[in-house]
Amino acid sequence: MEWVLNSKERKCPVSVNKVEYHPYMTHLGIRPEVHREVGRVTRWRTPGSSKVLDSIDDAIDRTGLSDGMAISFHHHLRNGDKVLNLVIERIRKKGIKNLKILPSAMFPVHEPIIDAIKDGTVRSIEGSLNGPVGRYASLGNMEEPVILRSHSGRVRAISQGELKIDVAFLGASCCDPLGNCNGLKGPSAFGPFGFGYADALYAEKTVIITDDLVPFPALPISIPGTNVDHIVKIDSIGDPSGILSGTLKITDRPDHLKIVDNTMEIMDKIGLLKDGFSFQAGAGGISLALTKKIGDLYYAKGMKTSYANGGTTRFLVEMLNNGTLETLSTGQAFDLSAIESLLNDKNHFEIVVDQYSNIHSGATTTEPENAAFLGATEVDIDFNVNVNTHSDGYLLHGIGGHQDVAYGSQMTFITVPLSRKGNPIIKEEVTTITSPGELIDVIVTENAFAINTEHIRKEVKQRNEDFEIICRKQSLPVVSIDELRKKALEYGEDINAKFGDQLVGMVKYIDGTVLDSIRSVKE
Amino acid sequence: MEWVLNSKERKCPVSVNKVEYHPYMTHLGIRPEVHREVGRVTRWRTPGSSKVLDSIDDAIDRTGLSDGMAISFHHHLRNGDKVLNLVIERIRKKGIKNLKILPSAMFPVHEPIIDAIKDGTVRSIEGSLNGPVGRYASLGNMEEPVILRSHSGRVRAISQGELKIDVAFLGASCCDPLGNCNGLKGPSAFGPFGFGYADALYAEKTVIITDDLVPFPALPISIPGTNVDHIVKIDSIGDPSGILSGTLKITDRPDHLKIVDNTMEIMDKIGLLKDGFSFQAGAGGISLALTKKIGDLYYAKGMKTSYANGGTTRFLVEMLNNGTLETLSTGQAFDLSAIESLLNDKNHFEIVVDQYSNIHSGATTTEPENAAFLGATEVDIDFNVNVNTHSDGYLLHGIGGHQDVAYGSQMTFITVPLSRKGNPIIKEEVTTITSPGELIDVIVTENAFAINTEHIRKEVKQRNEDFEIICRKQSLPVVSIDELRKKALEYGEDINAKFGDQLVGMVKYIDGTVLDSIRSVKE
Repeated sequence: MEWVLNSKERKCPVSVNKVEYHPYMTHLGIRPEVHREVGRVTRWRTPGSSKVLDSIDDAIDRTGLSDGMAISFHHHLRNGDKVLNLVIERIRKKGIKNLKILPSAMFPVHEPIIDAIKDGTVRSIEGSLNGPVGRYASLGNMEEPVILRSHSGRVRAISQGELKIDVAFLGASCCDPLGNCNGLKGPSAFGPFGFGYADALYAEKTVIITDDLVPFPALPISIPGTNVDHIVKIDSIGDPSGILSGTLKITDRPDHLKIVDNTMEIMDKIGLLKDGFSFQAGAGGISLALTKKIGDLYYAKGMKTSYANGGTTRFLVEMLNNGTLETLSTGQAFDLSAIESLLNDKNHFEIVVDQYSNIHSGATTTEPENAAFLGATEVDIDFNVNVNTHSDGYLLHGIGGHQDVAYGSQMTFITVPLSRKGNPIIKEEVTTITSPGELIDVIVTENAFAINTEHIRKEVKQRNEDFEIICRKQSLPVVSIDELRKKALEYGEDINAKFGDQLVGMVKYIDGTVLDSIRSVKE
Repeated sequence: MEWVLNSKERKCPVSVNKVEYHPYMTHLGIRPEVHREVGRVTRWRTPGSSKVLDSIDDAIDRTGLSDGMAISFHHHLRNGDKVLNLVIERIRKKGIKNLKILPSAMFPVHEPIIDAIKDGTVRSIEGSLNGPVGRYASLGNMEEPVILRSHSGRVRAISQGELKIDVAFLGASCCDPLGNCNGLKGPSAFGPFGFGYADALYAEKTVIITDDLVPFPALPISIPGTNVDHIVKIDSIGDPSGILSGTLKITDRPDHLKIVDNTMEIMDKIGLLKDGFSFQAGAGGISLALTKKIGDLYYAKGMKTSYANGGTTRFLVEMLNNGTLETLSTGQAFDLSAIESLLNDKNHFEIVVDQYSNIHSGATTTEPENAAFLGATEVDIDFNVNVNTHSDGYLLHGIGGHQDVAYGSQMTFITVPLSRKGNPIIKEEVTTITSPGELIDVIVTENAFAINTEHIRKEVKQRNEDFEIICRKQSLPVVSIDELRKKALEYGEDINAKFGDQLVGMVKYIDGTVLDSIRSVKE
């Protein structure tokens, strides 16, 4: 295999199985003038005929699915998803082999996919993987490397033809006989439908699998029936207990709460927390705590934030309801209150991933964000962030929206503890680069924080230098990233992965270039 | 020029200026397995740069508009539109020549386009035209024939690559700096944005022209900024008095009211007017009267209609509000109450033209309609309908949604007077075929009506035969179409056009085939 070094000095293959790969060059991305061929643009039906089929088997037959094709799934049903396993099971029964699967994310519930890999039904995975399947891949069990893309990187690849979908199998919690559907109603409601939107639009054939077939029109229409070929009604697309979290937990760990306090103090001192503040929040414990702190602060001061981009939970909905937040966009709902609000609040809108953060879409909902808060499994002294592998080398997480938010938002805070179980989290070099340091502005730990003052964009460099000066003047615990590394080392020695030689995965940047390669782990 | 006869025995050119044309075959349409190349799918911007430009001139320059290109416009601003004339004026100043323009419709306000045709700025028109420009074309003044498409035929052509748009210039009444925009807010609010949606999605470059630039996010988002390259803020995109009708007038002409009563009686007797009835209404005087009659009837009986597809006016909104209508979709708003309702009523939703009635989209909002009411300039004894030309041959109207609704809806009523100014409206043969008789079920006049019992779809033929028997039994004035022709002839002699030899226009069917050719008129 021929390799090149990318601009982060990481090894990238030139080609794998006749597919060419391009090395990462800059966080500003390559800018191809892409035209692409769309999937089938006719869905003519005999007048009077129905799109509703009897079974998944029938749908598989009607789509013409055959050996070597690529099929896609969305992950809005999260760890409650029944669709992916059900479809793969039916495909196995039919003996179709060598499929490429393109899930927008996978969860522990998808462990049965390993059996489908073993018997040759599934040959490769492009998308996001997680937990058991990641561990399986890390041990060198797959014939082809897993291609990891961020949420928006996946949609960019689909819309540019880099990733061709033969059949999309999409769970919908509510669908009408013309295929108009949403995820906001029905017993398996999961929220916005953005992770399936591009799949439906660009796939050669789109199958909606639903457990709530309602009369026309299914409102609101998140995916129009104009992008749908077939509909299958089944008993249940998901386990509600795994779809939405009833009880999202704010962190109560003292070190995490210290990270939250430090982040709030930095934002306060550098002047972010004024009227009109806009931000991105998620559903992690630290992120929830930050959202709640921001909400409480603005409520106490009688001020307004202008905009939040969720990963939406009741904490954001409460801000919308009590007037401390003016507008809210949601790409993923994490609890029922997010769904209720989407159905009822005019200033709360559903977005698709192309709008969320596609580097080539020119209008991302991350761009207006003054600040975003992201986590990490590791960071390093070049501010590079890893969220994919652990220090022992196992590939256990997808990219999610990490690169997307880090690229789009005006200021990216990485909130991490200095160490986990004795393993220093600030490294000389991250095991895997997920988001290049050029996208990261501040690393906040429970003890101190570091600001990235090396940036190729002059105005960002200047701004961050100014912020560093302000923080020093205000006696905040701002240190250099090297000092942060030293502090982390006080907790123990680095865990280092024992890598084998096999290429088991590649991390793509949002523009489609290769940021890093992931090798197999020796047990 | 080589000609062929299509299945309606109308002459169609085989090719014009190296573009091939295909003759109409069947109302069920041709069914191409089309893949197409999308316009540019990257809109990368330098981080921090703005989409908002200083002027239309600047936008023209930035899009690279040059001789021979195709530019498009939507007609939501109707006879109040300032955008088309303004853009053409700036293009003329720049000396760009031989453009093809693709307006979704034109209005009398666009008469200045004739000057741009005369000086060679505009060479050809594909889309819809109206009034003065139509008369100008009829007199053989244009170098190339005008290609007429229905609303959905236009979108089908765009989405299949038959119609390539280099630059779309789209007026928006409300837009944010990322290009997210709508027509529902702002001083020039015009309603849904569906006639511009496909243009923005498929054009090589999309320019939004707005008179209300608001902070992110412009909600609701009808066209996402992901489909927008440039934004220009101008003083006014339209004259509100020409955009929305403040006072839509229900017909008070006795012959028209008789047509309305007859239509209601037919629908009642054949059992359409029951709970759950669904229908398509428009803004013409007869259509308004029918809508009001239906609303009053359902209100009096305490019944519900399930669904209406508008062309929306206050008469439909009132039904939604008083509970006689469950769900309402709108592709065009004709008054302010339609816009207010779209912003406030959850069961009222905006649709794009692809959803409305694209024969190849597989999920049209016309399909669920039990009945639709359409007008005509002429009909003939084969039930063919003309809405484009008058009997004197002048091309004065676009197709609008005529074919779309006639194809999609389950039962199509043509409501026409037997004669206009002494000219019998029921002809041996229509001057121009707009909607083939195969799509038409009933011709209702003030005196009698005819049901189309010749239909190639067996179930439709059977149904219409049954309906005819019911109407005869109930002593309704049902007659054969030939008798209807005779009754029309009692009012006078046919006006017949004096045609020249020049091909000045072609009427395309919704599938892209040529239904009819329009020749020049001898003055």
